[in-house]
Amino acid sequence: MPIRRRLEYDSRPMARYFKSDNTAPAAPEILEAIAAVNHGYARGYGDDEWSARLDERFSVLFERPVRVFPVATGTAANTLALATLVPPYGAILTHEEGHIVRDECGAPEFMTGGARLILMSGTGAKVTPYAIENAIVANPSSVHTVQPRALSITQATELGTVYTPGEVQHLSAIAQARGLIVHMDGARFANAVASLGCSPAEITWRAGVDVLSFGATKNGALTAEAVVFFDSEKVADFEFRRKRAGHLLSKMRFVSAQLLAYLENDLWLRLASRANSLAKRLGNAAGSVLIHPVEANEVFVRIGDRGAARLREQGFEFYDWGAVGSGEVRLVVSWDQPEEDVAVLCAALADLQRKG
Amino acid sequence: MPIRRRLEYDSRPMARYFKSDNTAPAAPEILEAIAAVNHGYARGYGDDEWSARLDERFSVLFERPVRVFPVATGTAANTLALATLVPPYGAILTHEEGHIVRDECGAPEFMTGGARLILMSGTGAKVTPYAIENAIVANPSSVHTVQPRALSITQATELGTVYTPGEVQHLSAIAQARGLIVHMDGARFANAVASLGCSPAEITWRAGVDVLSFGATKNGALTAEAVVFFDSEKVADFEFRRKRAGHLLSKMRFVSAQLLAYLENDLWLRLASRANSLAKRLGNAAGSVLIHPVEANEVFVRIGDRGAARLREQGFEFYDWGAVGSGEVRLVVSWDQPEEDVAVLCAALADLQRKG
Amino acid sequence: MPIRRRLEYDSRPMARYFKSDNTAPAAPEILEAIAAVNHGYARGYGDDEWSARLDERFSVLFERPVRVFPVATGTAANTLALATLVPPYGAILTHEEGHIVRDECGAPEFMTGGARLILMSGTGAKVTPYAIENAIVANPSSVHTVQPRALSITQATELGTVYTPGEVQHLSAIAQARGLIVHMDGARFANAVASLGCSPAEITWRAGVDVLSFGATKNGALTAEAVVFFDSEKVADFEFRRKRAGHLLSKMRFVSAQLLAYLENDLWLRLASRANSLAKRLGNAAGSVLIHPVEANEVFVRIGDRGAARLREQGFEFYDWGAVGSGEVRLVVSWDQPEEDVAVLCAALADLQRKG
Amino acid sequence: MPIRRRLEYDSRPMARYFKSDNTAPAAPEILEAIAAVNHGYARGYGDDEWSARLDERFSVLFERPVRVFPVATGTAANTLALATLVPPYGAILTHEEGHIVRDECGAPEFMTGGARLILMSGTGAKVTPYAIENAIVANPSSVHTVQPRALSITQATELGTVYTPGEVQHLSAIAQARGLIVHMDGARFANAVASLGCSPAEITWRAGVDVLSFGATKNGALTAEAVVFFDSEKVADFEFRRKRAGHLLSKMRFVSAQLLAYLENDLWLRLASRANSLAKRLGNAAGSVLIHPVEANEVFVRIGDRGAARLREQGFEFYDWGAVGSGEVRLVVSWDQPEEDVAVLCAALADLQRKG
Repeated sequence: MPIRRRLEYDSRPMARYFKSDNTAPAAPEILEAIAAVNHGYARGYGDDEWSARLDERFSVLFERPVRVFPVATGTAANTLALATLVPPYGAILTHEEGHIVRDECGAPEFMTGGARLILMSGTGAKVTPYAIENAIVANPSSVHTVQPRALSITQATELGTVYTPGEVQHLSAIAQARGLIVHMDGARFANAVASLGCSPAEITWRAGVDVLSFGATKNGALTAEAVVFFDSEKVADFEFRRKRAGHLLSKMRFVSAQLLAYLENDLWLRLASRANSLAKRLGNAAGSVLIHPVEANEVFVRIGDRGAARLREQGFEFYDWGAVGSGEVRLVVSWDQPEEDVAVLCAALADLQRKG
Repeated sequence: MPIRRRLEYDSRPMARYFKSDNTAPAAPEILEAIAAVNHGYARGYGDDEWSARLDERFSVLFERPVRVFPVATGTAANTLALATLVPPYGAILTHEEGHIVRDECGAPEFMTGGARLILMSGTGAKVTPYAIENAIVANPSSVHTVQPRALSITQATELGTVYTPGEVQHLSAIAQARGLIVHMDGARFANAVASLGCSPAEITWRAGVDVLSFGATKNGALTAEAVVFFDSEKVADFEFRRKRAGHLLSKMRFVSAQLLAYLENDLWLRLASRANSLAKRLGNAAGSVLIHPVEANEVFVRIGDRGAARLREQGFEFYDWGAVGSGEVRLVVSWDQPEEDVAVLCAALADLQRKG
Repeated sequence: MPIRRRLEYDSRPMARYFKSDNTAPAAPEILEAIAAVNHGYARGYGDDEWSARLDERFSVLFERPVRVFPVATGTAANTLALATLVPPYGAILTHEEGHIVRDECGAPEFMTGGARLILMSGTGAKVTPYAIENAIVANPSSVHTVQPRALSITQATELGTVYTPGEVQHLSAIAQARGLIVHMDGARFANAVASLGCSPAEITWRAGVDVLSFGATKNGALTAEAVVFFDSEKVADFEFRRKRAGHLLSKMRFVSAQLLAYLENDLWLRLASRANSLAKRLGNAAGSVLIHPVEANEVFVRIGDRGAARLREQGFEFYDWGAVGSGEVRLVVSWDQPEEDVAVLCAALADLQRKG
Repeated sequence: MPIRRRLEYDSRPMARYFKSDNTAPAAPEILEAIAAVNHGYARGYGDDEWSARLDERFSVLFERPVRVFPVATGTAANTLALATLVPPYGAILTHEEGHIVRDECGAPEFMTGGARLILMSGTGAKVTPYAIENAIVANPSSVHTVQPRALSITQATELGTVYTPGEVQHLSAIAQARGLIVHMDGARFANAVASLGCSPAEITWRAGVDVLSFGATKNGALTAEAVVFFDSEKVADFEFRRKRAGHLLSKMRFVSAQLLAYLENDLWLRLASRANSLAKRLGNAAGSVLIHPVEANEVFVRIGDRGAARLREQGFEFYDWGAVGSGEVRLVVSWDQPEEDVAVLCAALADLQRKG
């Protein structure tokens, strides 16, 4: 099937842009950090002095010894972590709205050598204990069936909600009782932690998470994600798999420097908090058309095709969401979203409700 | 098999460093280009204005319409290109010294779904027509055998030599007569072009190359490589495979900006020329211990274990090369190698010869 | 995770066995055919005289030129056919009750290099046009998503129902309009054809099927299945994939002979008709506890845990089916099921209904 | 690349056939055993009474507890065994003449998820200690390189020679000292054991072999091979992989019965001994044109193109072997090779030598 030639570049200005947080630039602190390490020689492939600090820096952050591996994309982080822990005949239980399900073009299957995603439903893109139990019962320990080996949850979720530590603990307990490992896709981990006001430890390993995709790109980095293993036993063959997938960067210092700067002086939480609070403002303005509670930096509203068209006329850009014809749209607030954009969108949303 | 915990960071100073060109920093022009695009919103995944210019910019460079796809590593560039063109039961003919053979931990096999590398010998890491003929005869069109489908050559080679346009043309003609596509691993493509003084077109598609891994990281970029298809038919399913391998970067503008700056005002050729000429100087100093002609930025000398030890005592860092006990070492000159390092090394090499 | 040592052999007699049709022996005609070819030399890997007749024999059967490839198992037939037609980033739309979903331990993912099964619901394990439309809309032509490339339906279905030619035609038309190929898992193809009373052509290629897994093992062969391509263009690289998966049998004559004997004098339809009519008898006896119409050789009844226990006390063996606690069981009638077993089971089912 | 339509069936008579041992029929004892189990119901997928006896029967044969898994082809046996023990980034050291290298269309790469075969030379297709040492040194424990994890040797070899127990022990010791497991491809294991006159134990686990592909098809079975694990720990996830590759046969009794009959009354050794001794006769007749010692049932002679043509004129069929133009041919003697064929070929070989 032929791939069409790339569409012409869309040269319209992008003001009032609520499509995604990966359209934002990098934070100045991140760029400065890159410039700061750009002198002299540094050993390649992670043997430089900045990369050497990562394990320690993240161990402080998570209040226990951890192993950290930088990669360039969230898809790489998620799927390399899963490939390390799930055999080819394994299955990964995950929510049907998950990024690994909908937005990675089958990367989990590719990286694992063909493991299966078993999809579960649940309000607000949150997995339920019941769904996990069911999925495990439906795939018993038999040679005829794929074998559930991992639970993967997203924090914050793809619908802008956030799991509490208690919720994660409950899900992890069920999973681990049946021998599943627990992976957290933290592409918006900063937004979740800022929202919960808890420690990173509390919402991860203390709640049973074995491995975390720690995202930074969406929240102010250029291109930097990290896989964090809370149990060094579980690192297993991650390093071979990373290299083999082309994800071991030669000039690693430039990614490691981003991660160090991201954590410095709580930059990561400051950026995420700003986005969260602007999103909250949108959520409040949305009122009755709001679909899910606004717990991170994404807002989902049901405004119908007419409402969506009206917003687009005003220059707002965003994605339709949900099933075709659902009338739902997604509004994402990035770390450097202009306040004015948000104010104007609040007014527009209020207006929509008034006029129906 | 357990992976050992990372070795302690080696904190000795890295003066006189000739281990690899990926230990060099990024060129100032590259860093400035990143800063210059770091404002406002830009659509993700390559739909930004800078990425949109790549096809055109590279088409000018190569004097024909080409398709260009940025990725973060050379391993990704090489193996995604090959995976697009070689089926799982296919085979890739390549030199036994090749980077795809020795330094990618099986990435070609992984990306292609299990295609095989068929290894060929040849002086100076250069593939010979004879070896290609032989490899094809040994793997006939039969269901019992893997099927040769690609020839992959490295330019400049892993031993610092360079194929002439005539040589590439000869190899390509043999390959294509038997239905193989031709891939060029151009991790050091700039060094080769600078060395040959030919046009990029002359040494690639005009000589029969179908797809090129166009390297920039080793020669002054932070992290930027590009896959260049000379025939848009051959792009096939590259884009799905790139995404699926986690190599579609969300904030693509930062990689595309590097590539544009790299080509601007022939930065790429200036950086490579400097490295080449310093390497030449080393080659001249090496005299009788030189193993291969110095045609790019790598120098191979046979100085024995004693010679190597003597250089290391003087603070030089480099890799032993070749078979254990061969007494061969590799000296790589990077784009910003201090002239003084080179001068001191020249003296040391001359000294070695005098004292035997 | 350790595999437990095999359970002790269950040495209880297996009278009144309704667990599966693969527990039956081979038909005498099949065994005689094997003996008949067991003399002298025959070229290996399908170059023998019996294998050479298959294409022609099946072309007569299907009233058009076809290509036929014997393999040893249904899982091999299904997944090699799909692997030939679906790329690694592709998706296969199929019913959630499908054998390829539940009973092949991820073989479709393995053989395709990681393609995804997209599961659809539908009464009686039959796919609906609506579900296909939905699945295609949910996975648009975008680099972020797996790409629907095949529809796979089972005939007869895993719940003992049968698609009519009109139904297959309707589903195929929708699939093909969107560029999907159509695969039919015909592990019980004979039972379906015998039930419909139509020609094999009518229910396959005339209704839009591109490739068929033609089963024989369950219906009287020792071990013989065939992949039938109705369009020789679609054979593509099937032969390489079969060899590479270890499914090209060296002494192929012994499998081809089974297939030829299976078709000889309509043996395949006679065996299937007998099983179907006995199943029908059970269905009639089941009366109000029957769940799905009995259209092939499988009967599904809802008799509760108590009913199931009562049947087991009488020596019947069968599988519980459906969700845990559903009280559903599956009764499979094989080609050589003793009539008496069926008569006794009919009585037992009638008895169950009487006593509630 | 299009696959050509199958060549027309070659209808010439196959007298004087020395092409391969897989062109022979099945031994009468094997066929009788199949008929003998063809009654009544038997649980599927290996839960029948004959399959249940395999572990015990082979444990007696090998004088220690073993686990045995029947499959339908040698390629399946070899590559599923290796896939169980070698990770995707692993490498398998093997002789360049190996069946897994030349005749399985990349099945080892497919089954393992992309592991690499590292090829070694050695006279008579026998691996040397030196080659193993070298291959391990060339692929050190580094993330950049594939990791040697298995040694695979063939017994009898592809050039008709046989490893002595001492030789196997030597090779195994080197491999295991470096953490490699040892696989033996025993497609012609019977010929090797018959030739050595040793016990099966002596040439396998007592000499360090971890897993054996125990062949029967070439030596009198219809289609039956077995994977024998000498250490139950190493079985690991073999059963999932076998199912997932379509190699778990439903009517397993028919394969297990072949294996039991094959061992009964030393049938396997009687058949192999006959073939070996006829091959020996050919070897003696070959005299000076013999290339390798005849230690099993294969004979390699260097008779030039003219010699080969002369034999073909007399109705002998065989394969050219070695490099194009080498003038080498392979003569394989099967378990039921007519004595007369051998006598006539002996005369023809003697004649060739006389006339030059």
